[in-house]
Amino acid sequence: MFVNRIRIMVEWGDCDPAEIVFYPNYFRWFDQCTTALFRAAGLPVEKLFKAHGVIGIPLVEARARFMIPSTYGDELVAESSVTEWRKSSFAISHKFLREGALALEGWETRVWAAPHPSEAHRMKGAPLPEEVIRKLSA
Amino acid sequence: MFVNRIRIMVEWGDCDPAEIVFYPNYFRWFDQCTTALFRAAGLPVEKLFKAHGVIGIPLVEARARFMIPSTYGDELVAESSVTEWRKSSFAISHKFLREGALALEGWETRVWAAPHPSEAHRMKGAPLPEEVIRKLSA
Amino acid sequence: MFVNRIRIMVEWGDCDPAEIVFYPNYFRWFDQCTTALFRAAGLPVEKLFKAHGVIGIPLVEARARFMIPSTYGDELVAESSVTEWRKSSFAISHKFLREGALALEGWETRVWAAPHPSEAHRMKGAPLPEEVIRKLSA
Amino acid sequence: MFVNRIRIMVEWGDCDPAEIVFYPNYFRWFDQCTTALFRAAGLPVEKLFKAHGVIGIPLVEARARFMIPSTYGDELVAESSVTEWRKSSFAISHKFLREGALALEGWETRVWAAPHPSEAHRMKGAPLPEEVIRKLSA
Repeated sequence: MFVNRIRIMVEWGDCDPAEIVFYPNYFRWFDQCTTALFRAAGLPVEKLFKAHGVIGIPLVEARARFMIPSTYGDELVAESSVTEWRKSSFAISHKFLREGALALEGWETRVWAAPHPSEAHRMKGAPLPEEVIRKLSA
Repeated sequence: MFVNRIRIMVEWGDCDPAEIVFYPNYFRWFDQCTTALFRAAGLPVEKLFKAHGVIGIPLVEARARFMIPSTYGDELVAESSVTEWRKSSFAISHKFLREGALALEGWETRVWAAPHPSEAHRMKGAPLPEEVIRKLSA
Repeated sequence: MFVNRIRIMVEWGDCDPAEIVFYPNYFRWFDQCTTALFRAAGLPVEKLFKAHGVIGIPLVEARARFMIPSTYGDELVAESSVTEWRKSSFAISHKFLREGALALEGWETRVWAAPHPSEAHRMKGAPLPEEVIRKLSA
Repeated sequence: MFVNRIRIMVEWGDCDPAEIVFYPNYFRWFDQCTTALFRAAGLPVEKLFKAHGVIGIPLVEARARFMIPSTYGDELVAESSVTEWRKSSFAISHKFLREGALALEGWETRVWAAPHPSEAHRMKGAPLPEEVIRKLSA
């Protein structure tokens, strides 16, 4: 299992009037973590999608459990890895640590998505390339 | 069960290079739906939190399942309601329809949060006021 | 001069720990106002860009002056209009009122942008269609 | 003049259907640059505001000129410095470079803001502390 770590600085503008992170930002960071995971595995999305004729890796499901709130100035360490491979979809886990403690945990299920043959803005799952599976499993 | 409906116009800036909604925006809209649900029940958060000495209704868990992608110019109808009450937390369901079809479904579990007695940026669940439960259950 | 008005509700998540709107959100609303202005003039961008072979109306310059801060629960009325036409660019003015008082003022200068003939992600100004000018000047 | 540099990775979710950065994100980054500038000068905002009894450094004016669009996967270098000090406000310049070329330039005018003596969510400019001016001018 290939694990990637990135550091996330919580910014003033990420926080709401309760002085903690406005929660949708965590999902923005999950997306960023997934991109960083792919990049670290030698699969930068800005080349990958075009090389394979896919339009993205859109979500089928996303989930998060929040344990410890964070505020501006806090530094988080995010650990991400693919935890499951299916035919044309896969699951990614994101653990966010603050000073070593698990602050929150997230899961994304994404599709390897080709353009829909007949409808604009629709997509169609395509078989995951072996190269992608291999590099993210190493 | 008190159900509230709001209309959401998908904007250009809500969409990503795949020309569909960048998914964290759905969670931003869930938050907006919850605020609208409280307002429609006669509980506008800008007054409610201060009246009850709470600092917000932060998330314990959030989840979404995505069925149909949407793009800029699309109009969504969001239906929200509280589906479960616990002592100091509650669950909210959000269904997003496009042209009558269920495009996605979301769930939030939130805490009725008082300031933590000793630590800044920490919170402590407080018992949900009966008035809040009653107005959102009508 | 064609003027369009939209109402904007300031949401909890639009505000920062100072309990006022996090200022980049105003620029997000300017973009939304411009889209609404085009739509109200019979030029919905989701059709317009494709019909004219443009990839968008990206910014050359953006500016805002902030007079009165707003917070969650506030309702703003935004008044937008094109104030200047050049060959392949145009300027839009946005005035945001709260309870009748001018809370902030914004200006955008945008280009009518065709794909660059040779470079990806570059653009090239194209002459503004007469129809666009006419409908937004009525 | 104290200059600070940070690196900004343009993410997939920062970009719109034209495959370039959705422009309000640049202002989000300006805010982040200002925070980083203060931190680099030994003035982390999460301590600074509370130490001086201010509620933030809200904007009076913000402006940007865009020269070269950027897309996901691009890395930008942002150079920020305070360019002008007034009694209770100051101006900051942000230059964003991509591969050495100036991609965009931004300016913020901000107030050193104390709580308004009588109105909630209103602020009042306060004299800039000498320590702040000295550290950001070094």
